[in-house]
Amino acid sequence: MFAMMNEAKTPRRPAAARYRAPAVLKAFRLLEAVAAARGAVTLSELARRLGYSKGTLHGLIGALLDCEALCESPRGRGYAIGPAVVELAFRSRNFFRIVEQAQPVLDGLRDRIGETVCLGVLSRTRGLIVATAEAAKPLKISAPPGTSIPLLAGAVGKVFLAGLPRARALALIREQGLLAYTPQAITDRRRYLEELEAVRRRGFAVDREEYLPGVRAVAVALGSPAGLPLALWVVGLAETMDEPALETIAAEMQGAARRLQEILARNE
Amino acid sequence: MFAMMNEAKTPRRPAAARYRAPAVLKAFRLLEAVAAARGAVTLSELARRLGYSKGTLHGLIGALLDCEALCESPRGRGYAIGPAVVELAFRSRNFFRIVEQAQPVLDGLRDRIGETVCLGVLSRTRGLIVATAEAAKPLKISAPPGTSIPLLAGAVGKVFLAGLPRARALALIREQGLLAYTPQAITDRRRYLEELEAVRRRGFAVDREEYLPGVRAVAVALGSPAGLPLALWVVGLAETMDEPALETIAAEMQGAARRLQEILARNE
Repeated sequence: MFAMMNEAKTPRRPAAARYRAPAVLKAFRLLEAVAAARGAVTLSELARRLGYSKGTLHGLIGALLDCEALCESPRGRGYAIGPAVVELAFRSRNFFRIVEQAQPVLDGLRDRIGETVCLGVLSRTRGLIVATAEAAKPLKISAPPGTSIPLLAGAVGKVFLAGLPRARALALIREQGLLAYTPQAITDRRRYLEELEAVRRRGFAVDREEYLPGVRAVAVALGSPAGLPLALWVVGLAETMDEPALETIAAEMQGAARRLQEILARNE
Repeated sequence: MFAMMNEAKTPRRPAAARYRAPAVLKAFRLLEAVAAARGAVTLSELARRLGYSKGTLHGLIGALLDCEALCESPRGRGYAIGPAVVELAFRSRNFFRIVEQAQPVLDGLRDRIGETVCLGVLSRTRGLIVATAEAAKPLKISAPPGTSIPLLAGAVGKVFLAGLPRARALALIREQGLLAYTPQAITDRRRYLEELEAVRRRGFAVDREEYLPGVRAVAVALGSPAGLPLALWVVGLAETMDEPALETIAAEMQGAARRLQEILARNE
């Protein structure tokens, strides 16, 4: 299960690729700042947040407006993410087809285990939920598409890092830190690496109230069957997701993960 | 209805903004080429399609891999759109919340008029469907999210261009051309501009088998209530969407458009 992810994440790049177009890196940092702001963000706010000169910002914003990666907010109060970004995401390997094809599998899994099921895309810093099947009970965890969690919080990060070469996992841990979201969070680097070993052996990761008190989760990696690194996870209240339940859920998830991988690989 | 779109589309930019970071423009052309290819695309294919030198491509691809706007395909056969683009789109003004909030209005409109209803984001070149409510009849037009049509094809382009200043509309027509998709398509520039005048007067645009034989459509502009230029359109078979039906549909659509604008403006 982890082989595909390893391949996708340890690119062999030609020596010539050492040069990186610096304006492109800056442009994406700018787009991230705009997306993080939610509302429209002004040029002076961007200058403050990013520390770029006004000249650099003018050049970047001009280019991003030209290719519609940015647009001006309807009331002229600043900039927002533009239609080109939405279009790229939608056209990317028929992204919506992925969500559409995954939904019945998520619904089926939810019906069998009775907890909320999420499908997420993993980036370097976050796990982004792109489809969910919510538990059909009054007291449940709700996680609508668009919600994202820090990558190293809970089960998702563990399952993702377990699929990476040790050096790359360590680099991500150093970069982002193991934060004490709750008293249960694993903040000791050695203990965390041991946990990753256990995840590799078992094929799934568990979060025992490590990100949110009272909440447990199980995560399974899907590799990149459709080009994007994906993971499946189940979130529920600690009260119902006790130790025997965790085992049953993990077994059901592994079946669902195989079905998802088969369905999504057909998209390639 | 068109005022907001005009504002969003006629940016006043400071003189300093005349400089455009050329690497950023090239990077987005590269991302577009990758998205258009659907499957993974190799470096030599990109060099052929874009006409960039291998050195330029290495620098751009290196930067885009670093910020995860590109990723390597699982089997190492080339590049695909990466998680950062999907994340930007999802986080952009709660994009999924827009779709979620719009869906009940689309469903209600579909139930009243019995034809397929689409919500689309408009970019410089295409109308991209992001949500649909399909007609509940056996013979219907199906337009799943992710589908896009050329901007100047049919009703969507007309309603979009009618909201732009004449000079900008003309520039888009020159750039993309008025193609003869069907014998009914308006390919004469003067007749097309007269049609835009009629759209401005009526507040909606009609396509009478101008893009697909046997298919008619009505479109209404929504401005950019959530930061992205949006339009609502209804597509159906010419047989059921006759002249009296077009009038009724347009009237129902204008009510739905106002509701959508109110709901989405609350997101701001």
